[in-house]
Amino acid sequence: MRSDDTKRVSKSVQTSPRSRLKRHPERGSGDLERIAEILDAAKICHVGWIDEGRPIVLPTAFGRLDDSVILHGAAEGRFMKALAGGAEVCVTVTLLDGLVLARSAFHSSMNYRSVVIFGRATPIEDRSEKLCALDVLVEHLAPHRSAEVRATTEKELAATTVVRLPIVEASAKVRTGPPIDAKEDLDLPIWGGVVPLRLEPGAPIPAEGSQAMPWPTSVLEAMKGSADR
Amino acid sequence: MRSDDTKRVSKSVQTSPRSRLKRHPERGSGDLERIAEILDAAKICHVGWIDEGRPIVLPTAFGRLDDSVILHGAAEGRFMKALAGGAEVCVTVTLLDGLVLARSAFHSSMNYRSVVIFGRATPIEDRSEKLCALDVLVEHLAPHRSAEVRATTEKELAATTVVRLPIVEASAKVRTGPPIDAKEDLDLPIWGGVVPLRLEPGAPIPAEGSQAMPWPTSVLEAMKGSADR
Repeated sequence: MRSDDTKRVSKSVQTSPRSRLKRHPERGSGDLERIAEILDAAKICHVGWIDEGRPIVLPTAFGRLDDSVILHGAAEGRFMKALAGGAEVCVTVTLLDGLVLARSAFHSSMNYRSVVIFGRATPIEDRSEKLCALDVLVEHLAPHRSAEVRATTEKELAATTVVRLPIVEASAKVRTGPPIDAKEDLDLPIWGGVVPLRLEPGAPIPAEGSQAMPWPTSVLEAMKGSADR
Repeated sequence: MRSDDTKRVSKSVQTSPRSRLKRHPERGSGDLERIAEILDAAKICHVGWIDEGRPIVLPTAFGRLDDSVILHGAAEGRFMKALAGGAEVCVTVTLLDGLVLARSAFHSSMNYRSVVIFGRATPIEDRSEKLCALDVLVEHLAPHRSAEVRATTEKELAATTVVRLPIVEASAKVRTGPPIDAKEDLDLPIWGGVVPLRLEPGAPIPAEGSQAMPWPTSVLEAMKGSADR
């Protein structure tokens, strides 16, 4: 469902004072293609909003459609009520890529790719747009899956709120490479380096009734991650 | 540095209306031991706070000392200025454990373990407590590492703000197991099941000058994850 077209990103991203990086600006990027790449490599995001005057941050699934992030949830839940109601949100996506072991605690770090998006979401009300957005969510969870599952019912559609957050006020931040040690630490007899980390798929566990079925395309695709290594 | 003592958790956790789960309460737990287990299995958290009236969520390293979460950052950064200044925060930790592929999009999900903590942090000012808290952070990044790195200097200590957030208003939420499909979907010729996911270490990459050194205990320990499988 997410065709090559919906993957294409070209619009440039506005960098507001708010999304501008204060620490390590050399690690930042406002480029939408870079942002899209990071979003597409992650399965979950963390959504922050203000609930009765206090911040709340919850993990959730998401998808990307062109230059928007798609979020969904139970229509009756406080999460979707806040988002569909136009609450200011911050959506953050982080991929942890490695432990950076410097010769000092001070210079120890992590390698990561992260994206922060600020804004207000809008509900997707149109029936066919909403169905399309749900497909985007399923495709983000597992590419090819939207063609495998049975169709969404009207009752399920009514029970789900889907919103779109434009990727406008957004930035990416990336750290890669070895530890940056203080010069005077380089001759210490201490091992320095990186332990790479990667989210790897394990052997699929078929549900009751699926044991005798071959893996569908979506599962074969999900398993590719481990074969790449 | 984090001894068995600091790992022991016994205090029970208060469940406020705010941290009480509205959706899927059967997935929730306010038990501090369970919360500690999830925190100890994760490398990063997402911290949300209110910045000039809008929510902001950033990924960061953390540690756990007894029934507190330890956070740190550049003393001059807006992040630590807000936290040390007593801003209301929400610290969320999420471990993604699998893709849950149901026979419908509606019942598709993810397996995960997550913890949400609300409250206000307090700066750790006492020199020895602060050094201890920095050790906790390094140990959380890589167990045994605090004994391997060179000592923190006074200048580094002054440039770093360290805060403690008590795990009081907190809850854990966990989803495990197969998809829960609608009864009428169980006979459809669609594969259902789970693709487990796990953050796996890759081969350590020694920095310039460390190529000839044997892996230290911290690296051997970090590599255990993959051997366990």
